[in-house]
Amino acid sequence: MIRTHEAGSLRAEHAGQTVTLAGWVARRRDHGGVIFVDLRDASGIVQVVFREEDAHALRNEFCVKVTGEVSARPDGNDNPELATGAIEVVASELVVLSEAAPLPLPVDDTITASDDLRLKYRYLDLRRSGPANALKLRSRANQIAREVLHARDFNEIETPTLTRSTPEGARDFLVPVRLQPGTWYALPQSPQLFKQLLMVAGMERYYQIARCYRDEDFRADRQPEFTQLDIEMSFVTQEDIIELGEELVTKLWGELAGYQVQTPIPRITWTDAMNRYGSDKPDLRYGVELTELTDYLRGTSFRVFAGAIDNGGYVGAVVMPGGASQTRKELDGWQDWAKARGARGLAYVVLDAESGEARGPVAKNLSPEHLAGLGDAVGAKPGDAIFFAAANERREAQELLGAARIEIAKRSGLIDESTWAFCWVVDAPMFEKTDDGGWTAVHHPFTSPNEEWEATFEEAPDKALAYAYDIVVNGNEIGGGSVRIHRGDVQSRVFDLLGITPEEAEDKFGFLLEAFKYGPPPHAGIALGWDRTCMLLSGNESIREVIAFPKTRGGYDPLTTAPTAITTQQRLEAGIDAKPKAVAGTPGTDGGAVPVEASN
Amino acid sequence: MIRTHEAGSLRAEHAGQTVTLAGWVARRRDHGGVIFVDLRDASGIVQVVFREEDAHALRNEFCVKVTGEVSARPDGNDNPELATGAIEVVASELVVLSEAAPLPLPVDDTITASDDLRLKYRYLDLRRSGPANALKLRSRANQIAREVLHARDFNEIETPTLTRSTPEGARDFLVPVRLQPGTWYALPQSPQLFKQLLMVAGMERYYQIARCYRDEDFRADRQPEFTQLDIEMSFVTQEDIIELGEELVTKLWGELAGYQVQTPIPRITWTDAMNRYGSDKPDLRYGVELTELTDYLRGTSFRVFAGAIDNGGYVGAVVMPGGASQTRKELDGWQDWAKARGARGLAYVVLDAESGEARGPVAKNLSPEHLAGLGDAVGAKPGDAIFFAAANERREAQELLGAARIEIAKRSGLIDESTWAFCWVVDAPMFEKTDDGGWTAVHHPFTSPNEEWEATFEEAPDKALAYAYDIVVNGNEIGGGSVRIHRGDVQSRVFDLLGITPEEAEDKFGFLLEAFKYGPPPHAGIALGWDRTCMLLSGNESIREVIAFPKTRGGYDPLTTAPTAITTQQRLEAGIDAKPKAVAGTPGTDGGAVPVEASN
Repeated sequence: MIRTHEAGSLRAEHAGQTVTLAGWVARRRDHGGVIFVDLRDASGIVQVVFREEDAHALRNEFCVKVTGEVSARPDGNDNPELATGAIEVVASELVVLSEAAPLPLPVDDTITASDDLRLKYRYLDLRRSGPANALKLRSRANQIAREVLHARDFNEIETPTLTRSTPEGARDFLVPVRLQPGTWYALPQSPQLFKQLLMVAGMERYYQIARCYRDEDFRADRQPEFTQLDIEMSFVTQEDIIELGEELVTKLWGELAGYQVQTPIPRITWTDAMNRYGSDKPDLRYGVELTELTDYLRGTSFRVFAGAIDNGGYVGAVVMPGGASQTRKELDGWQDWAKARGARGLAYVVLDAESGEARGPVAKNLSPEHLAGLGDAVGAKPGDAIFFAAANERREAQELLGAARIEIAKRSGLIDESTWAFCWVVDAPMFEKTDDGGWTAVHHPFTSPNEEWEATFEEAPDKALAYAYDIVVNGNEIGGGSVRIHRGDVQSRVFDLLGITPEEAEDKFGFLLEAFKYGPPPHAGIALGWDRTCMLLSGNESIREVIAFPKTRGGYDPLTTAPTAITTQQRLEAGIDAKPKAVAGTPGTDGGAVPVEASN
Repeated sequence: MIRTHEAGSLRAEHAGQTVTLAGWVARRRDHGGVIFVDLRDASGIVQVVFREEDAHALRNEFCVKVTGEVSARPDGNDNPELATGAIEVVASELVVLSEAAPLPLPVDDTITASDDLRLKYRYLDLRRSGPANALKLRSRANQIAREVLHARDFNEIETPTLTRSTPEGARDFLVPVRLQPGTWYALPQSPQLFKQLLMVAGMERYYQIARCYRDEDFRADRQPEFTQLDIEMSFVTQEDIIELGEELVTKLWGELAGYQVQTPIPRITWTDAMNRYGSDKPDLRYGVELTELTDYLRGTSFRVFAGAIDNGGYVGAVVMPGGASQTRKELDGWQDWAKARGARGLAYVVLDAESGEARGPVAKNLSPEHLAGLGDAVGAKPGDAIFFAAANERREAQELLGAARIEIAKRSGLIDESTWAFCWVVDAPMFEKTDDGGWTAVHHPFTSPNEEWEATFEEAPDKALAYAYDIVVNGNEIGGGSVRIHRGDVQSRVFDLLGITPEEAEDKFGFLLEAFKYGPPPHAGIALGWDRTCMLLSGNESIREVIAFPKTRGGYDPLTTAPTAITTQQRLEAGIDAKPKAVAGTPGTDGGAVPVEASN
């Protein structure tokens, strides 16, 4: 070791010892004849005192080695805010290990800088305590999760990342294969198929902190590569996975967020979550529940509501406590907010704070009877505002109200930022309608119907429920999973309903279906979105903060400037433009022909 | 849980208890009226007794749930070889969870099957105890390594796998970027650059069990994706990394191989390793050292030797104890062996077991004086064979002798398969000559010269030594690392020597060089080849055995049949044929133009 001690470890009891430290010049103050330097290493900071002539060359972020004597600070100079604040190191020797050019990004916890600048100079950004601590927290989160899982005899198993393209709703990243020109690997969107194969293989308890890839159009908080804590178990039910999930979040939040999670974590059905909160990941830190008004308003002459009701749709409302005091501009602002979400607007009524009288654009369209009972129907008091949504599709209107609910909580300061509200959302629907009138799997096509629906899901696909569960905290889905189908007959029926022909199924998932012929066990699993989980635990608002080298919105890395163009030679060598060989012969171990279902 | 107990956990003290088990039918024996089934789950096997009429449908590998009473086996029926051999479970209820079709690969530890068949049905292969235990061992190896590293305050940090193409001697896998058509990510060959950036970032102690990618022509034991235990530390010297490496292998071998590694592990310089063993990863389980004869044979008229000596090359020998007793056919076999390695042959002399007289094709070419002293010169006794190699390039001849040494040990049964011989190979050369007369880095261009050579490596690049170290066991290199260059001036001089122009360096490693302007700390690291390490620990001879879903030689996966052709639409969507945009504007966070050094 180049040093004898870590800077942040020095205390009063070290006084009198000669130590050698190594780290960075965090701050330098000149005081007539002496120079005080805050020396920083990964453990913390200590004050080092130099004679002026010994240290005049030092600048911020020089990397130095210092030998000196630990000395109690002169009376009154203690710094109780610093762990090492009782002492200082009186330098007798200084070696500049490397110099630092003028800094494009000051290493200073108090300054803010653009994301682009921070990421381009991420190695300077990470010298700041906040960013560094986020990565350290993540490392510890990994360790906590592994402690829980190893104590339960889980095996950590790596699954391939150069694999086969399998459509799961988002695009695969593709990789040309030089040794088999014209063919491509895909980077996996998740280890889903492999972890199920491991269950067929009798491994029983699998986990992996797995890198996954999704070529999506970037939304605010997405990365092309992301990480999930991926778990699968055999011979278990939904209850077992939920119990394990609860131990994981209890341990994680207990140590890293100082929060004692109350177990069992409340459960809410997917339908209740939508009806009450307009979200499948409800934020339960506050109330502000939705009320359905479809029956209450039946017969209204207000076209917007009547249309939805007549079409078998949904009308509902959410109350903003005290919302009647909003200015006209604030109320107009809600219309802009709704339009930004793609809605046509947000109908509302305000109840006069004194008279309780209903006012606002919608009020004059409703009958006196409907207006008179409205407050009671939705649980609004004088002084509140009532926002409405109506649509032929229940979910569409509920989601608008659900978003309004979140916005109400923000604008009204209803969110207790100091707490964590966990819930499980269970009994999710198996299927949802596609635009062309067919059905698609809400989770994935291997999700098992629950016991009640196993025999009959075809009869009412819109009502059929799955053994699928999401874990939600403060309105963030941090994980989700399901019991998987382990019976070939059930899987075939699900594929039938989804319009996946046996040929397509064979093409896409043939190897999984083949595996399921050989005594697959009942199995279930869950995946925790590890970036988001660590983001929440570290109190950050972007997953980038818990990723060492994240990319910006376009998948661009300001540090390495990846992605880049490639050379003609790289293109040629990689076989990018090669035509796949015709199907010939049997798959070999010699890099020979591969039996592909070529549709190129 | 579907079961109350694990099959392998039942013991005599469970007798009388009613248990529910779930697992697979491993074996079935019918005994007039009763059927005995070996029920297997991940924990082991237990014998279950059914009435014939209850279980006649059961076939091998059916997945079943059984409820029954644990019962002591009748006297004399104990099976002491089975952990559960004192008891059996008398079944009262049977549920077939899923059936199994006739098995393409019997789940039987005693059969052997081709690799292709095993990998195509890997989920059946892994139901066998050998393959399953290899994966379980690997999981535990991960855990042991993490315990060592976390106890030393290492942080586990994930680095990107969608990154920038950086030439490191092998080809990069490439990934087209749909959102920035015409540009590509590369999959990293190692986290090398990122871990060095993390050191610049002040993280000080980093590790990762990292997936790496190398698009090489497949040799026997290579996979396109592989895993390394990747480690980097700041403010350390070579000694610190070696000490850490020794703790890692001590803990791993101690628990998983039942072997107490003696520390300090012996060190041998790279030059000594080549001179004595003809290998930079010598197998020290046996002696059979090489002897240099360049001086001894100076002046010989034998053209093969004289040519090498006159050209400043090398002549050497290795002794096969007892090798004189080989038949002519066996001795000819050595010629074939040498030719298969690309050599022209393997000159030899045998010493008559009784007279000590030198015989064989080479003997008649050597002078009586040279022959008379030969046995003493190489340490051979009557009855031994002496193999020679000569070449203008010392390394070429030494490597042939080194390979012969290994082959001698195998053919003569000199290898103690029960032991583990570790060594560190240190003081590796920094550079080696390229075919065009230039220099290339033996390790990578960020490897630091040692103290002795730091100021002068340009003066004798062929002699300059690096702070580079490999850890070797039984002739397998399981890890290697180096102290890195942290001074910009030294890095520039190394690039100069390697013929990397400042422009090329800027293009390829610009971001690393930029980072090194801002106070980089002294740092060093190591990477253990995790597949090979786990292979050795598990007593296997192929890394495929410790990979859940390995690929065959051509990068082909018999299970999923990856890689495959892609559709025209996938090709179009992925932007594979897009031309990169011209460089324009500044890099944005909006997916806009990227400033690439386009050479396409």
